[in-house]
Amino acid sequence: MGADYLEAIFRPRSIALIGASKTPGKLGYEILTNIVKYGFSGPIFPINPKYNEIHDIRCYKSILDVVDEVDLAILTGPIDKIPKLIGELGAQGVKVAVVISGMRGDPSSKEIYKAIKRHGIRLVGPSSLGVMYAKGELNATLGPVEVLDGNVALITESSTLGVALMGLASIEGVGLSAVIGLGDKLDIDETDVLQFFEEDMSTKAILIYMESIRDKEKFLRVAKRISKSKPIVLIGPRHGVIEELSLEKAGILPARDIQQALDWAKALSTGVKAGGKRVLIVTNSGGAGKMAYGLAKGTEIDLVKPSEELKEELSQFVPEKGRYENPVDLTGRAEIDAYRGVLEVALSSDEVDGVIAIYCESVLSDPSRIVDIIYRLKGTYNKPTLVSVIGGARALEALRKLREKGIPAYPTPHRAINSMEALIKWSLFSK
Amino acid sequence: MGADYLEAIFRPRSIALIGASKTPGKLGYEILTNIVKYGFSGPIFPINPKYNEIHDIRCYKSILDVVDEVDLAILTGPIDKIPKLIGELGAQGVKVAVVISGMRGDPSSKEIYKAIKRHGIRLVGPSSLGVMYAKGELNATLGPVEVLDGNVALITESSTLGVALMGLASIEGVGLSAVIGLGDKLDIDETDVLQFFEEDMSTKAILIYMESIRDKEKFLRVAKRISKSKPIVLIGPRHGVIEELSLEKAGILPARDIQQALDWAKALSTGVKAGGKRVLIVTNSGGAGKMAYGLAKGTEIDLVKPSEELKEELSQFVPEKGRYENPVDLTGRAEIDAYRGVLEVALSSDEVDGVIAIYCESVLSDPSRIVDIIYRLKGTYNKPTLVSVIGGARALEALRKLREKGIPAYPTPHRAINSMEALIKWSLFSK
Repeated sequence: MGADYLEAIFRPRSIALIGASKTPGKLGYEILTNIVKYGFSGPIFPINPKYNEIHDIRCYKSILDVVDEVDLAILTGPIDKIPKLIGELGAQGVKVAVVISGMRGDPSSKEIYKAIKRHGIRLVGPSSLGVMYAKGELNATLGPVEVLDGNVALITESSTLGVALMGLASIEGVGLSAVIGLGDKLDIDETDVLQFFEEDMSTKAILIYMESIRDKEKFLRVAKRISKSKPIVLIGPRHGVIEELSLEKAGILPARDIQQALDWAKALSTGVKAGGKRVLIVTNSGGAGKMAYGLAKGTEIDLVKPSEELKEELSQFVPEKGRYENPVDLTGRAEIDAYRGVLEVALSSDEVDGVIAIYCESVLSDPSRIVDIIYRLKGTYNKPTLVSVIGGARALEALRKLREKGIPAYPTPHRAINSMEALIKWSLFSK
Repeated sequence: MGADYLEAIFRPRSIALIGASKTPGKLGYEILTNIVKYGFSGPIFPINPKYNEIHDIRCYKSILDVVDEVDLAILTGPIDKIPKLIGELGAQGVKVAVVISGMRGDPSSKEIYKAIKRHGIRLVGPSSLGVMYAKGELNATLGPVEVLDGNVALITESSTLGVALMGLASIEGVGLSAVIGLGDKLDIDETDVLQFFEEDMSTKAILIYMESIRDKEKFLRVAKRISKSKPIVLIGPRHGVIEELSLEKAGILPARDIQQALDWAKALSTGVKAGGKRVLIVTNSGGAGKMAYGLAKGTEIDLVKPSEELKEELSQFVPEKGRYENPVDLTGRAEIDAYRGVLEVALSSDEVDGVIAIYCESVLSDPSRIVDIIYRLKGTYNKPTLVSVIGGARALEALRKLREKGIPAYPTPHRAINSMEALIKWSLFSK
């Protein structure tokens, strides 16, 4: 926890980029460009004997020429040169290296391993996608530079999938606090990094893509501890780690797919826990309400059966032809005040632990009108409120606004129900 | 089949809109605006005693004042006035009415039913969302006017959900040939409409949202016949129609959720069938490939185990460190020519019935480069090719381009696998 080498990876004061390049498409160009564009404020030392400067930054022939202290070295050159470069890092007193070079399973690993042990260097990779830490303005990755800042940490074994996940997370409105690609995990592994995120103030939920776990017992032990305060979502190929490990006992949530993982992360990273399993569905479409209700049946969710008192309270906002059972159906002519009233009653009721609000776009309803209501209620009541806005361009716009305000919002009721279930599972585990 | 009254609903030569209005937000305003904006080319007769014209179109005090022939009457006024208006339609010789007025289960139904029987009028609704027929430039619905033209017909019982589905379909790149909201199904029901789409040249797949089926036996009998030529996807609340009916025997595909239904429709409406179950996965990310492979296991999909000959053919395009088993892994450094080569080999092999191409966005790969390749192969080989592009803004752009070219494309491998499974199920049923 808070180990020095992990500090140096995520919050380095200075970076050397070995194999920096002026050629777009080369790792050493793309990584340097990301570091610069994302706004790293400490000294950057590009290393390449061919250049005097890159991106107007002084370029060094060798790491040995750098006089200042280097916290983190990022290596992008040919994999067979890495052992020699590790030696130079050792000579220079650099303690941590991230090796982006190499494809998974490269045979040079043994030589690299010997070198880091000899020089007392901790290493991420090889074949890492790099490291990003939003609060430190560090983006030394092969991923996009326009990554959405947030509080979900992503740990990935696969570089290519990890990069794509960084992009998809932005599109889906899932903000990232940090990204690290572990690649071949020659040295630093998932459990080491997990421990860093346990203490990291900017991380509220942890997303892991992993094909194998190096030390399963240790991983589960550490994950179990961390899950009490921060939810962990694990994705991996089926018929692999997910089935092998007793994830449930450790409070880890196994997602079936990357979309589900991102959906869950969105709900889990709000910091709002459910006090119990009892959920009320509110909708302006009988059909969508019935769909959601049917989907929730047979999950961990307990569908609230409102008491007579609660029904009476709800009924004052429900129009004629509507319904004040669960789902509460405000009908296609739902006024926005009716939504506000019903949600307020539901969130203040001790019969309800969480609410799913479903809103269908139509010519009679402007979905953006629900945004402010939900936002205000979020500030008043500390209960999970997940939203589904179904429709076209205006629904998309409402979803974007909701996400900007930190409200978990989904284009289908199914994804909202499914995320509520994950949130409830974690809430009960961490109680 | 091809019944006159169905012709008049979807391809009317002229329309009367009873209850037309100048007040935005009123049904009679929104419907008329949609009809005009969507470009209906026949005569439109707005009816409302209060106005002389609406949208520069002459407005009539009563349908009885219209001299020309009216094929289709759309009614938007108060539900209790409908029986009287039906009488006027009868006097005027109008044969078909779509009643948008009313909420589900309105008590005036009996009076309306008596009136249509007395006057020999066929009726859609009450509480219909209206009717859209893309090729006829007819959009008399409460839905968006910017609906994506295509070849999926949507039949819905719920108006509010149906409208939202029209919007979501556009966002998801699913083009619609027609939409009809059946509402209370006082007269015309799902089976009647299904028969129209059987013969409709512009419809290649049928999507149904239904909470109840009026005549289950007849529905299944007709659906079974139609499923041989056009796939039918059914959505509905769980623990309802979907569980009650023997859908599989009728070739109907029950979707769990609206997203899945739209995903399936996208793959099913291309008109390309799978000759069998054998699928090859091609990817530039080992991780994404393993995820997809794991997700496909245990489904109807048979994951191809390539023969030595096929492996040799594939291997010439696979770079070092890549993999020419299934999934074929072109690695994160995949050249676009390697994709082309591998896909060509796969699609021309008699060991392969369908291909899923997965492409992860990264700094090293521009996902839009895969679009033209897939498009050209689509024109050459008549085998299902489903694509998943994972990533951020550039992936989104590639997905949009693929959809514009009629190629089923999804942001996650899971949705592509799941849609391939639906396509295979239907292909085998309709063989």
